Amino acid sequence: MSAKDRTAVVLLSGGLDSSTVLALAISQGYRCHALTIAYGQRHQVELAAAARVAGAAGVAGHKTLALDLRMFGGSALTADIPVPHGRSMDSMASHIPCTYVPARNTIFLSLALAHAETLGAFDIFAGMNALDYSGYPDCRPEYLAAFEAMANLATRDAVEGKGRYRIHAPLLRLGKADIIRLGAAMGVDYSLTHSCYDPTPAGKACGTCDSCLLRLKGFQEAGMSDPALAAT
Amino acid sequence: MSAKDRTAVVLLSGGLDSSTVLALAISQGYRCHALTIAYGQRHQVELAAAARVAGAAGVAGHKTLALDLRMFGGSALTADIPVPHGRSMDSMASHIPCTYVPARNTIFLSLALAHAETLGAFDIFAGMNALDYSGYPDCRPEYLAAFEAMANLATRDAVEGKGRYRIHAPLLRLGKADIIRLGAAMGVDYSLTHSCYDPTPAGKACGTCDSCLLRLKGFQEAGMSDPALAAT
Repeated sequence: MSAKDRTAVVLLSGGLDSSTVLALAISQGYRCHALTIAYGQRHQVELAAAARVAGAAGVAGHKTLALDLRMFGGSALTADIPVPHGRSMDSMASHIPCTYVPARNTIFLSLALAHAETLGAFDIFAGMNALDYSGYPDCRPEYLAAFEAMANLATRDAVEGKGRYRIHAPLLRLGKADIIRLGAAMGVDYSLTHSCYDPTPAGKACGTCDSCLLRLKGFQEAGMSDPALAAT
Repeated sequence: MSAKDRTAVVLLSGGLDSSTVLALAISQGYRCHALTIAYGQRHQVELAAAARVAGAAGVAGHKTLALDLRMFGGSALTADIPVPHGRSMDSMASHIPCTYVPARNTIFLSLALAHAETLGAFDIFAGMNALDYSGYPDCRPEYLAAFEAMANLATRDAVEGKGRYRIHAPLLRLGKADIIRLGAAMGVDYSLTHSCYDPTPAGKACGTCDSCLLRLKGFQEAGMSDPALAAT
């Protein structure tokens, strides 16, 4: 079966990485169902970005699932813990920061797996990358391989031999500048996306959290200006 | 560190198995935080059972998290698909039934993992069993081992060497009658629990779905009467 005949679930946060992944999956011929999780994130404004990006990309479907991870807390994104600002790239690389959300990618991939199985799909796309990232353990290749192995033991369709689930993380080994160049070449409109962890009440990016700094550095290295940050 | 100093997260549905697991974890000295998922299940009456069981057991905490898996559907428990009634034990063992909820245990264990990490706990208890069960792929030992391996790559506390997550499924190799004998010996009040997939609008057990039949058979083999079904 070629990608043209295949359905995929794409985890879409509304940020730069997942928006690029969505464009990539569509360019490869997948019928894409986008899945966004409203997990009580500080930067809820990204939910509107996800809807804009999904609409512009022409997805086969887009679901937003509510799941309040503030009930557990434990992260600057889901509890009253300040988001760090103005950190150096060395500092980001040196330890796992307080913006890490416990088990978040595992929860998100599990939900994507559930959605895929109900659609009869076996391909799940997600935007993790292990370069130019914030040191999260659930963005590493060994984690993704372990999740994929588990998924193929967890599900009826896999156990009954109907197919094998694949977790696609096509950005895993790309730097932010390469991701931006790739997206720009595919026509991704980054003005629709949102990356900031700590936006103003009006939804404007702060420009100084890890996510903004990585994004700005990426656009700078790609020799482009960031249409979303430029607008704020 | 002995179990006495340890905190655990216990997935508690309000059914017979998870109520027995909760009693077992408490008897081993764990400080137990029960976690119940309101996933839009047909048998929502089990949520009230979970609250009763948690209260009677004397847990350190009990959270009920809402997550509407009806958004994906694909199961008799989360969509308008009839629950099978009156099946033989052979029929149950022969294939994965329509009451299978895609990736449900993976989603639940992921949420338990998130809760555990925010509590600083490394022990997660759940009620899966691979005998006298409905053939679900995510109740098998190889699945649970794969989930545990993945969890230890997914999380900050594991990666930073603070501990190693363990998924405890102490009922995995017990039949239903053994589970009931074990629970009864620990003083579990099974009249508080609910197992039926397809209760009446008033919340009474049907007595003929897979879950009721396995439960009834278990009590019968244990030489006991079922206080919950007897009351209906």
